Amino acid sequence: MEQSELKSGERIDQLYGADISIIQNSAVFSFSLDAVLLADFAQPDRTRRGLTVDLCAGNGAVGLFFSHKTAGAIHLIEIQPKLVDMAQRSVALNQLTEQVTVHHLDLAQATNVIKPDSASVVTCNPPYFPNQPLSQKNPNPHLAIARHEIATTLAQVVETTASLLKMSGHAYFVFRPDRFLEMMTTLTTHRLMPKRVQFVYPKPNRPANMFLVDAIKDGRSGGLTILPPLTVADDAGTYIGHVAQLLYGPEGRRPQHG
Amino acid sequence: MEQSELKSGERIDQLYGADISIIQNSAVFSFSLDAVLLADFAQPDRTRRGLTVDLCAGNGAVGLFFSHKTAGAIHLIEIQPKLVDMAQRSVALNQLTEQVTVHHLDLAQATNVIKPDSASVVTCNPPYFPNQPLSQKNPNPHLAIARHEIATTLAQVVETTASLLKMSGHAYFVFRPDRFLEMMTTLTTHRLMPKRVQFVYPKPNRPANMFLVDAIKDGRSGGLTILPPLTVADDAGTYIGHVAQLLYGPEGRRPQHG
Repeated sequence: MEQSELKSGERIDQLYGADISIIQNSAVFSFSLDAVLLADFAQPDRTRRGLTVDLCAGNGAVGLFFSHKTAGAIHLIEIQPKLVDMAQRSVALNQLTEQVTVHHLDLAQATNVIKPDSASVVTCNPPYFPNQPLSQKNPNPHLAIARHEIATTLAQVVETTASLLKMSGHAYFVFRPDRFLEMMTTLTTHRLMPKRVQFVYPKPNRPANMFLVDAIKDGRSGGLTILPPLTVADDAGTYIGHVAQLLYGPEGRRPQHG
Repeated sequence: MEQSELKSGERIDQLYGADISIIQNSAVFSFSLDAVLLADFAQPDRTRRGLTVDLCAGNGAVGLFFSHKTAGAIHLIEIQPKLVDMAQRSVALNQLTEQVTVHHLDLAQATNVIKPDSASVVTCNPPYFPNQPLSQKNPNPHLAIARHEIATTLAQVVETTASLLKMSGHAYFVFRPDRFLEMMTTLTTHRLMPKRVQFVYPKPNRPANMFLVDAIKDGRSGGLTILPPLTVADDAGTYIGHVAQLLYGPEGRRPQHG
């Protein structure tokens, strides 16, 4: 894609760890570390041919980052037309139009375009903040919808996930620790059994600011594993370890804006 | 206490971090790292004069380690008479008979000796393993009761804790991650709101094998904090950081058997 095909305010960011280019727009939506970690945490089924669905897909980051892990089809569901447009152009930019389909759709209608009980993997980076009347929201409606439960809710996201997944399919979410118990309860009441949780810490000696969860549809209860902690950066804020590898690739290239 | 006052099979272990000596007996019960971490994690109320109760007290380790953090009374509840006897002699050994009382009692009867809604702090290191008919148990009945839910259950422990605590009092537990969700559900159904959780990792890059939880009676829901991870040992199994300090004290003395 030529730079000239970018729309006003857009740039191209690269994720070197996955060799993917993504069209970003700070005024509409930019993927962040959450998406990188979710795509890394999610695992394809054994055949690597199963169907993957990403809900609240935004500009397509999670689905695009996940594409090199599976040969199966990937469906992205996003309610905001500007983001759908950006995601579609990023899919083309990475020559993934055969594998990745972007749907402009409220996720509550996901089973209109994807057969129920058919997905091996569902990923989602849902809005983190409840839509309380008095909560401070971003005045930018695009960012507000991505961050607050304006267009959907955690319960709706989990219900849709459960309806799309086949039995023993895996749901992968990234969310905030202050709503951890709510997430666990919501998953289990929708037949999604949490199996593995990883807490993500921004720096040493800080509380977790994110967690990743892997839940299995109709999985047996009990046997939760709390994976080793993932610490993002050192005290100076420099990305370290696994996170640095994901962002910069094995050769340690620094991300540059396109 | 003279060595000659020890009974057969007993020894005295020291916890240098808390300057406490404890009578141990491998054939009956020995405190382990769980007790050290729980006593360290638990915090007295602001006045440092509130009542503390330790359930499933074993040989008294948690209550004794906690004694230097509070000027208030500490009550230990233990069902096994041999452990009650050991705990009582350890209380005397540390000259804490004015502060620490040991009750030989099923914790289900705790409110017979301690007023309901009166405790500022309740600590408990409960049996970790459900008492399933086919589960392998230690043939030693003392150890089996300490490890398996033979004499009590998690639900009973939590119910007793809730009945002992005053409003806004804190419950502190140490438990296993595979029963994490069960613990969270049990706490919340008994009016104990989990507020802080710390996962404990045996070594780097290993899943957690323990967690500590701080729950508040009638606390507001939401706002769970996942504290920084606590890693016990390095790859070679040598205790590190905070745990080494707790076990060996600031001067790094190695524990010796009395």
